[in-house]
Parts: sequence; structure tokens; C-alpha cells
Amino acid sequence: MEQENPINSVGVVTPSDFFFGTTDADALPLDSGAKLKNVNIRYEVYGTLSENKDNAILVEHALTGDAHLAGYHSINDKKPGWWDTMVGPGKPFDTNKYFIICSNIIGGCSGSTGPSSINPETGTPYHMKFPVITIGDMVRAQKRLMDHLGIEKWLCVAGGSMGGMLALQWGMEFPEYVNSVMAIATTSRISPQSIAFNWVGREAIMGDNHWQDGEYKEQPQRGLAIARMLAHITYLSDESMRKKFGRSLQNSADYSFDFDKDFKIESYLQHQGTRFVERFDANSYLYITRAIDYFDISDNAEGDLSKAFARMKHAKYLVVSFSSDWLFPSYQSRELVKALLDNGIDTTYCDIESSYGHDAFLLETETLGTLVSGFLSNCYQEGLK
Amino acid sequence: MEQENPINSVGVVTPSDFFFGTTDADALPLDSGAKLKNVNIRYEVYGTLSENKDNAILVEHALTGDAHLAGYHSINDKKPGWWDTMVGPGKPFDTNKYFIICSNIIGGCSGSTGPSSINPETGTPYHMKFPVITIGDMVRAQKRLMDHLGIEKWLCVAGGSMGGMLALQWGMEFPEYVNSVMAIATTSRISPQSIAFNWVGREAIMGDNHWQDGEYKEQPQRGLAIARMLAHITYLSDESMRKKFGRSLQNSADYSFDFDKDFKIESYLQHQGTRFVERFDANSYLYITRAIDYFDISDNAEGDLSKAFARMKHAKYLVVSFSSDWLFPSYQSRELVKALLDNGIDTTYCDIESSYGHDAFLLETETLGTLVSGFLSNCYQEGLK
Repeated sequence: MEQENPINSVGVVTPSDFFFGTTDADALPLDSGAKLKNVNIRYEVYGTLSENKDNAILVEHALTGDAHLAGYHSINDKKPGWWDTMVGPGKPFDTNKYFIICSNIIGGCSGSTGPSSINPETGTPYHMKFPVITIGDMVRAQKRLMDHLGIEKWLCVAGGSMGGMLALQWGMEFPEYVNSVMAIATTSRISPQSIAFNWVGREAIMGDNHWQDGEYKEQPQRGLAIARMLAHITYLSDESMRKKFGRSLQNSADYSFDFDKDFKIESYLQHQGTRFVERFDANSYLYITRAIDYFDISDNAEGDLSKAFARMKHAKYLVVSFSSDWLFPSYQSRELVKALLDNGIDTTYCDIESSYGHDAFLLETETLGTLVSGFLSNCYQEGLK
Repeated sequence: MEQENPINSVGVVTPSDFFFGTTDADALPLDSGAKLKNVNIRYEVYGTLSENKDNAILVEHALTGDAHLAGYHSINDKKPGWWDTMVGPGKPFDTNKYFIICSNIIGGCSGSTGPSSINPETGTPYHMKFPVITIGDMVRAQKRLMDHLGIEKWLCVAGGSMGGMLALQWGMEFPEYVNSVMAIATTSRISPQSIAFNWVGREAIMGDNHWQDGEYKEQPQRGLAIARMLAHITYLSDESMRKKFGRSLQNSADYSFDFDKDFKIESYLQHQGTRFVERFDANSYLYITRAIDYFDISDNAEGDLSKAFARMKHAKYLVVSFSSDWLFPSYQSRELVKALLDNGIDTTYCDIESSYGHDAFLLETETLGTLVSGFLSNCYQEGLK
């Protein structure tokens, strides 16, 4: 029996590809000085572009996300897109009102060009010959997609976590193409603690003898799982782990006095690591975490966050943090908000009380949804005036 | 030219060894049900035992610490013991007044019996045949040392981090042998977040192909370094990392667009990892972190922390936490203090304002020293009455 689409789902969606950069002139110039040729961008669209093209929203995914934002890839597909709770008819990102696009970042492994893609210079996969990219490079690649789609201005660029960095970068790089920015559970510059966690994660991948300087045929599974498990700890909070797992044991009534998984939290982490290895490329993990390390929106303003936003007079910002997020703690959002207000920018800020840690941006759907739908509605109404 | 001993140093100290358990009857029964034979305990002593033996203090070291608490191992030794700032003539642990002992835990790799010791059953090193031990086992081994030294009651058992767990365990297991307990930057039960970090660290060691199921001839260097770097992040605080490193680059003026260490924090972590591998055994790291996972002082009281301390009517407690310690956050010390007060136990608690994170217990010498010397002095005075 075929399953019916759940209520409020965008239903079955088909990803599209946009390919550019076959010539030197059309190649994508990168922050490193290199140029990227033969660039594919995998994307999905939901809803309908209005006649005057004023309802287009770009949603940015997080580190290990992809273009599959909402809906299903087939009628038998059981797993919806990663933000399906937020995107669909009548949902906060309302596909009855808005035309929504999500594109896989370059450097990724879910359709867009990344280290596992073919290097046109050699005819073999890039692996570690892929150039080191930045959040800015990802955004400039998306700008090509925007032009290709004939969109002249985003109603909003929105994202959580790394997606929020891309949203901020859009506002910074292309202020004339952005009506509003939604920066959720994110930061305007990566802290040394986050750089440190990324470093350890990469060491685990590159230290796995299956990694083979990135030339692996089979994934460096253990190293990649370690990187994921480590990162996963930073996505939860001390409190949410105590509530969800506590010191509960997985199977036995007493400690097993060995080194196998004994506690529920260990079993959970291992499961997360194992699942991740099946869906994500280790080299992509290296490249994207490096891009995150390099993210500092104030780099072009000598580290002065207020100066950095001087070009952004006309966009509206929604900044949302979560009280128990210790990866990108609330104080980092407040720094961002201060810099926006220093420039007289129309800014809405909310620190949502939540015990879910960083992952709250995927879980606190109700509170976040109210903020998102209200903010988008305001932005859209103003555009119609 | 020979260097002179710094002022207030205990000077040159020589470690001692206490060996027991050559017979089945004398072997150490473990929580796992196994028995440990041929047990060596490496220890150091400072100061002089008073005639009525009322001034003996046992100081417990942390995860990767050792018996070398203070002073120097030779006249040319440049590096003093790990808590030299706190232990010596006129210092908070005043060797002019007190007789101080520090002993390396069993399971360790700094003189006491651990996984790299010879298994008397086989005549070869235990490696992973070493039994899984607990904090309780470590304490019961130390009790043998206490008996051997003819000490009838500790004036105080004191420790920071894992050392604080041993101090708490002493009070729980041997209330009649303990006048006071000092639990610094520690917890009465390990949180799932800490268990998770330990799990990932062990995965890094056991996933290193040099580990060889623990039968390595050369250390699994990369895995052990990863475990250490990860743990090291948890010893610092977000704030201390921002103050000390920020986003500063190590060598270059701009990002180097590669995966080598670029930021100062990366370089610092790598240095910590490299240094650690030179001094610590990978299998010991596995065993000690597992012992920490299993630490829950309320295990014998069905998880009820207040009930757990019901036997401790007559000891005094000093509990100290540090405001930015997120490995064993202040709320965990407050839980401990509440359980002590529930039992009417004489308890002093201080949450020291500090940006140093967990490492504050080694760095906030001045504030901590005042608390320690006052507490010890009170305990000693009361004993003299």
C-alpha cells in the first residue's frame, strides 16, 4: 500500500542541478586565490515564485545537512527533509506564500561539487586536491544559482548553525540582494573552543589509517565516527543528556566491567557515529569544518563587528539563540545583535529558553516557528507596501 | 652550577614503593569480583608524622597525575611536583605542620601497578588482561598503604578532579579513618556528558591501529594524543580560550588554506597531545577513564545522594567548585553540599569565581590556598582539643 503524504507536507520533491564554470572565465574565484571549475549545485525548490519575484527565500543547511529541506524523495520515502517540521503548506516557512530554495553547499557530498567530485584537470576525484573553501565561497556559488533562477532579491536568507553563518555572509557580501536575514543558533565568528573541537575531529579522521591522505576507496569509518560523536556531544546540552540518558545502563543491571558500551549514552553515541558514516563523506567533513573555522564576519573590518555591518542599512535581521546552546552560546548572538543595533539595523532578537542545547534549532519548532512566521510575514508585508 | 632549591620547596624527594598481595589471602579484592595480586603502590611523603600520628594528610592526584606532588626528584630537576604551589613549608598544605602523602593510583602508569605491569599469572604485561578497576578499588589499595605506614586516621583526604572523587570515596568507605575530606573541582557522580567525552577519547585510542588490542610495543600515539586534546578542551573554559588564544593565527598573517595547524589554539592542542604521549600509557588512560565513568557515590544508596552520606556524621567537608568549570560544574558541587547538609555534616562550600575552567584547581592557588590552609588548620586545632 502506498503511503499518503502527511498533512502539510510539500509532498514528493525532485532535486535539481545547476552546473556552471566550464570555462576559465566562468569558473568560481575562491578566497584562497584558486578557481573552481565545473561546479554543480544541487538544490530543491518548494512553493511557487510570485509574478513579481518578491517571495523567494533561501534556506541554508548546517554542516552535515543537504538540499533536501522538506518533503519526500519518493512516494515510499519514510524520512522527510531535514526541516520538514518548519517548511510546508501552512508551516512557518509557508510554501503557500513563499518560494523556498535550499541548495547543498559546495564542498559537501550531497550533490554539489566537493572533494569526492571529479577534478576536471585530472579526470579523477579531487580528494585532498580540492581547494580549501570558505563560507564566502559557498555563498558566491549560491549567487550564481540565484542569477540562474532569475531571482533578483531574496525576501530572506535563513539558516541555523552553519546555515546561519551563510545567511550572515549573504547579508555582508550581497546587501543589495537581501531583504532580510535570519541567523539562528549561530555566531558571527567561530570561537577558539569550536576551532579546537573541529581540530580534534579532523585529527580523528586524518589519523585513521583508512584515510590514506584522503585517497580512500572505503571511508575512514572509525575516524569519521569519532569526529561525529565528538561533534554530537556539542550539539546536546549537559541538561538534555541528563534528562534523556542520565547514568542509565544499556543492557545490564550492573556495570559490565569492560570497555564495550555500557551506558545508554555510549550506545546512543555509537549509533550516531555509525549512521553518520553511511551518509557523509570524510573529506567533505574536513573541508566544511575548515570553512567554519575560517568564518569571522569581521575579518574584512579588522575584527570590528560593528564596522562589519556598516553596509547593511536596509535589511531586517532576526537573531535567535537558545539558552542551553554551548556550541554557539547566547552571548555570541548578543554580540551580533549589538553590532547590528550599533548600525541602526532593524533587528529582532530572541533567546529561547530550552534545554536541548545547540540542537534546539531543530527541535523547538513551536517557539521558533512563531518567530519565523511572524518575521517573514512582516518582511513580506513591508515589501508589498 | 647546581641549582638551589627554591624557597618554600620541600626540596629533593625520593619516591617509595609499597608492595603487597603476593598470596591469594593478601590479594586486593576488586569491585568487579576479580582479585589483584602483586600490587605495588608508588608514593611520596613530605613533612614529619607527629608523635601521636594526628597530622597525616593524603592528597589524591587527578586522572593523569602521579605520586610526585611536590619538590624535585634530583638537584638538577627543573620541574617540581604537580601541586608544588600548594605543598611545602609555609604553603597551604604546610609540611612544617603536616605529614603529607601522595600515592599513584592503581591502574596508573607512574609506579603503581597498572595495565603495563607484569601479570603474575603469565609473566608478561597485563595489557587489556588487567582487571577493570573502580575508584573504590583505588581507595582500598591506598588503605593497605595506610595500614602499612601505621597511620590510624587521616587528618584529611584531599583531592581535585578525579582526586576529589577518591577523597569522597575514602569518606564513604572508611568513615572511621577520616577526620575530614576536601573535594575540589569534582563531582559525586559522573554525568552522561563526561561519560560521553571519555567514550570518544577511548574510541580514539582503541581505533588507532597501533593500539593492537592493547598489546602495543609502541604507543598508539595519535589516538592517545586525540584523547588528550579532547580532554584538554574540557579542562579549559570558553572564556579562558578566548582570552588566551582568541582567533590568533600561529605563524602566518592570513589563513593558510590548508589542514595543518593554522590557529594558535590548534598549535597549543597539538603540543599538549604530543607532550602527553611521552609521559602517559594509553592502556592506563582507558582503565582510569573507565573507573571515572563508574564513579557514583550514591550507587550503594540507590542513587540517593543524601542517603549515601548517612554514615559520615563525624567528618568535616570542604567542597570547592570554580564558576567556569564545565566538566564538573558548580551545580554538581552544590548537589554534593546539599546531600552533606541533609545529614547535618559540618560542611564548608565555596564557588570560586574564575575564568580558568576546570584547570582552575591547579591555577587559582591564592584563593584556594587560603581556603585549604584555613580548613586544615581548623581540623587540626579541633583534633588537638
